[in-house]
Amino acid sequence: MKNSTRYRLTLEYDGAPFHGWQTQPGLYTVQETLEHAIYQLTQETVHIQVAGRTDQGVHASGQVAHFDLTLSSKTEDQVRRGLNYYLKNHRLVVKDAQIAPPDFHARFSALFRVYEYRILNRPSPPILNAGCVWWVCRPLDIAAMRAGARLLEGTHDFSAFRAKDCQAKLIRRTLDSLTINRESPFIFLRIQSRSFLHQQVRIMVGTLKAIGEGRYPPEAIVRMLASRSRSKSGPTAPPQGLCLIEVGYRV
Amino acid sequence: MKNSTRYRLTLEYDGAPFHGWQTQPGLYTVQETLEHAIYQLTQETVHIQVAGRTDQGVHASGQVAHFDLTLSSKTEDQVRRGLNYYLKNHRLVVKDAQIAPPDFHARFSALFRVYEYRILNRPSPPILNAGCVWWVCRPLDIAAMRAGARLLEGTHDFSAFRAKDCQAKLIRRTLDSLTINRESPFIFLRIQSRSFLHQQVRIMVGTLKAIGEGRYPPEAIVRMLASRSRSKSGPTAPPQGLCLIEVGYRV
Repeated sequence: MKNSTRYRLTLEYDGAPFHGWQTQPGLYTVQETLEHAIYQLTQETVHIQVAGRTDQGVHASGQVAHFDLTLSSKTEDQVRRGLNYYLKNHRLVVKDAQIAPPDFHARFSALFRVYEYRILNRPSPPILNAGCVWWVCRPLDIAAMRAGARLLEGTHDFSAFRAKDCQAKLIRRTLDSLTINRESPFIFLRIQSRSFLHQQVRIMVGTLKAIGEGRYPPEAIVRMLASRSRSKSGPTAPPQGLCLIEVGYRV
Repeated sequence: MKNSTRYRLTLEYDGAPFHGWQTQPGLYTVQETLEHAIYQLTQETVHIQVAGRTDQGVHASGQVAHFDLTLSSKTEDQVRRGLNYYLKNHRLVVKDAQIAPPDFHARFSALFRVYEYRILNRPSPPILNAGCVWWVCRPLDIAAMRAGARLLEGTHDFSAFRAKDCQAKLIRRTLDSLTINRESPFIFLRIQSRSFLHQQVRIMVGTLKAIGEGRYPPEAIVRMLASRSRSKSGPTAPPQGLCLIEVGYRV
């Protein structure tokens, strides 16, 4: 194998125009857009690895990805500036590019992911934050939502909180923290875990919102978890309120 | 004169699509859009008074306006919901509608206006906040900007900090406060005054940004003020970073 250099990228993107992260034939995706920009810059065809394969409509401000260059040699600055030049007509930017050790892996080296979910909780619809909030017009009971969140934290079988098409073998996961802060008219939910099941964050948020409306008591979380059935938890929150804000690695 | 009811509105709008607040023949403005929605709701032709006539491209999250209804009678809730129905295809929303005393005046009763100016200070361009920040790629010296801001606070002749077409008779104004906070990668400037000259906020921000780049020392503010000449101060900051966030009244 030839000598190659591994690059680690930190990415920000608007989920709205993309059909999610992962390349799919005929669809506009973040992965394909970025791989194409790398090709334009370096003439190399690479396969990017990513920390979190975000769904359609989900944003990122701290997504992490890596790829290897074999033929060309670029400085960190050349990679960041060069890719941003080719990305200039896309809602995607490279915030940072670093040369990484050969054993760094954007997905497998990650110790934790942090998502933020933003709810705009007021009677009138969003204007300045349209596209990055879930608008909920009736007042939510934050204390009830927090009580529910505490029951989700820790190690559980999260079968009731994953999409029906989720392929993961390991369903027992540890939710490090789920904190809820109100900065009126916004409610920010911050969710940290080593990894998440498919749509786990959005199903947890949709369920907590239903608790905040009084549709379930907070304790309902216990029987939802025990049921191991998607049909027992709440609705899936819409994607535009969700943003992958940080991925943590050993320094 | 017939009995009339005065309504006070709190408004949020995206400055981008509008040619500013004030009605101008053939242009899409906030005032005309709102007056038309009031007509659709009530069949009354009103003339709205506003706290701050924002320029083209400037946003508002706490703009205040008032108007009178003479023929129709509407509850506060009917006004808010009804106007938002007719505004649903515009980047403008009524956050709040209240019945106000007959002597309330959105412009003349205002005790202070608060603007926020947002700078995104990082090497890569904005994606998620594009449209509501000024992107400045080189690091700004916040301490120097703060030293400059302190020299703008207080009562001064602000001739050097108003647009050439500014018609105001009273050029001596009191800047209550101009505070600067960095929440990396953002820099937030918060500016409060009873009233502002035309483009005063954006010229002050543009000048402070130039100080942050080292193009002027902070003390240059003193001779700019003394010059009373627009040509001695810095460039005008672009409109999309600016937002009218609050108007204060006697409770």
